[in-house]
Amino acid sequence: MKKKNQKVNAAILIIGNEILSGRTQDKNVAFISNWLNEKCGISVKEVRIIPDLEKIIIKNVLVLSKKFNYVFTTGGIGPTHDDITAKSISKAFKVKYEYHKEAFKILENYYGKSKFNDGRKKMAKMPSGSKLIYNPSSAAPGFIFKNVLSLPGVPSILNSMIENCKIYLIKGLKVHSKTLNLYTVESNISQRLNLIQKKYKKYVDIGSYPFFRLGKIGVSIVSRSTSKLKLQSVNKDLIKLVKIKKIQILKI
Amino acid sequence: MKKKNQKVNAAILIIGNEILSGRTQDKNVAFISNWLNEKCGISVKEVRIIPDLEKIIIKNVLVLSKKFNYVFTTGGIGPTHDDITAKSISKAFKVKYEYHKEAFKILENYYGKSKFNDGRKKMAKMPSGSKLIYNPSSAAPGFIFKNVLSLPGVPSILNSMIENCKIYLIKGLKVHSKTLNLYTVESNISQRLNLIQKKYKKYVDIGSYPFFRLGKIGVSIVSRSTSKLKLQSVNKDLIKLVKIKKIQILKI
Repeated sequence: MKKKNQKVNAAILIIGNEILSGRTQDKNVAFISNWLNEKCGISVKEVRIIPDLEKIIIKNVLVLSKKFNYVFTTGGIGPTHDDITAKSISKAFKVKYEYHKEAFKILENYYGKSKFNDGRKKMAKMPSGSKLIYNPSSAAPGFIFKNVLSLPGVPSILNSMIENCKIYLIKGLKVHSKTLNLYTVESNISQRLNLIQKKYKKYVDIGSYPFFRLGKIGVSIVSRSTSKLKLQSVNKDLIKLVKIKKIQILKI
Repeated sequence: MKKKNQKVNAAILIIGNEILSGRTQDKNVAFISNWLNEKCGISVKEVRIIPDLEKIIIKNVLVLSKKFNYVFTTGGIGPTHDDITAKSISKAFKVKYEYHKEAFKILENYYGKSKFNDGRKKMAKMPSGSKLIYNPSSAAPGFIFKNVLSLPGVPSILNSMIENCKIYLIKGLKVHSKTLNLYTVESNISQRLNLIQKKYKKYVDIGSYPFFRLGKIGVSIVSRSTSKLKLQSVNKDLIKLVKIKKIQILKI
């Protein structure tokens, strides 16, 4: 178990042919990653997008659950034939894939006994011993088994459920960030920026990202650290650089 | 080497802390994946998003380049300290990381000798023996080394370069798709849909994706196959299902 004030990390496993094929634009990575950092101090360290194939799901769940503190899966927990996440996770950990009593009741109440068909019942099946992640928008719950949390792929439903993951997560150190938007090009500041990064190597990650805004090009310098103090020091050094190079800052 | 009319696959490796942290919404996966299928008949089978860390880049490049016909990397080929893709790929394949003569000339011409500083020169360094992927929008070329193609992370620049990847790629079988948008819920059709999927298991992948449009909920049934004929057969079966269940089709 992790102690307080430690770094806690996670991976996201996006399960779905529709994302891989380019038909659907993923929106869950950015949402989950931001939420985890802001609300739980958990940093996402790897994302994988894989097809709806049992063998591949099993392999990736096992690899990622071993490598990171938490794994969030999205997609594949609905009622149709291509929804095989719960079954695959059961197989991965060699436990029964069976009805979760409470999930069964929730769904039966939601649909009514007469309309609770086999497809709908399937959404109550999960790895034996799972705990539920409640779903305030469309009833069908997600679940957590070991350190793997399974959520649906539809962003609006996923977003409505994310707060219900919190009770299962150990909090880590939040990564703070500070952004400086500059009207310049990367190659104009790269050398001095490199020196600043080297100076704060242990504490701060500095990223540099070109942007195009209102017809002008620029660079966003994003500093990220668990220490607010170190971020302030980096910012002072960046402001010096900006003055030396006579660069205009874009205020948003 | 692959023969004509064979299946050709690829992986995408997104390199960048800004995507992992949720600061930036990735747009390159959907673009590359669509383009590869439409223009080259190449199917993307796995995507990974990883941080700007040399060891992790090396490991993932090696794993994916072994597992798939092609690997497309995005990000990390600019002039700043966090741009370490070219250096990492050189290390992965144990070749020199050195100036590419033509890339050097292109960049020198673009910036002019007096403004061609070290940061800008860095963009001409790549694994020894690389071939260039020309960049019509901002000069700095991408490169291909072995089966790994490296492109920038900025979507507008990447998009402008993608056609220049074509000469390096062997064409595969295009995956055709057909979408039927239905005003129903997944759990209403899941059982019959499962039977149709089983019937065409070898030839067609059928996916089912809930949607919300104009205040109504529905399901998109997406069938994908390299055979147009098989797609037509699936569609006939789906239309039968729609009639039996008295479901309204949404025409877009």
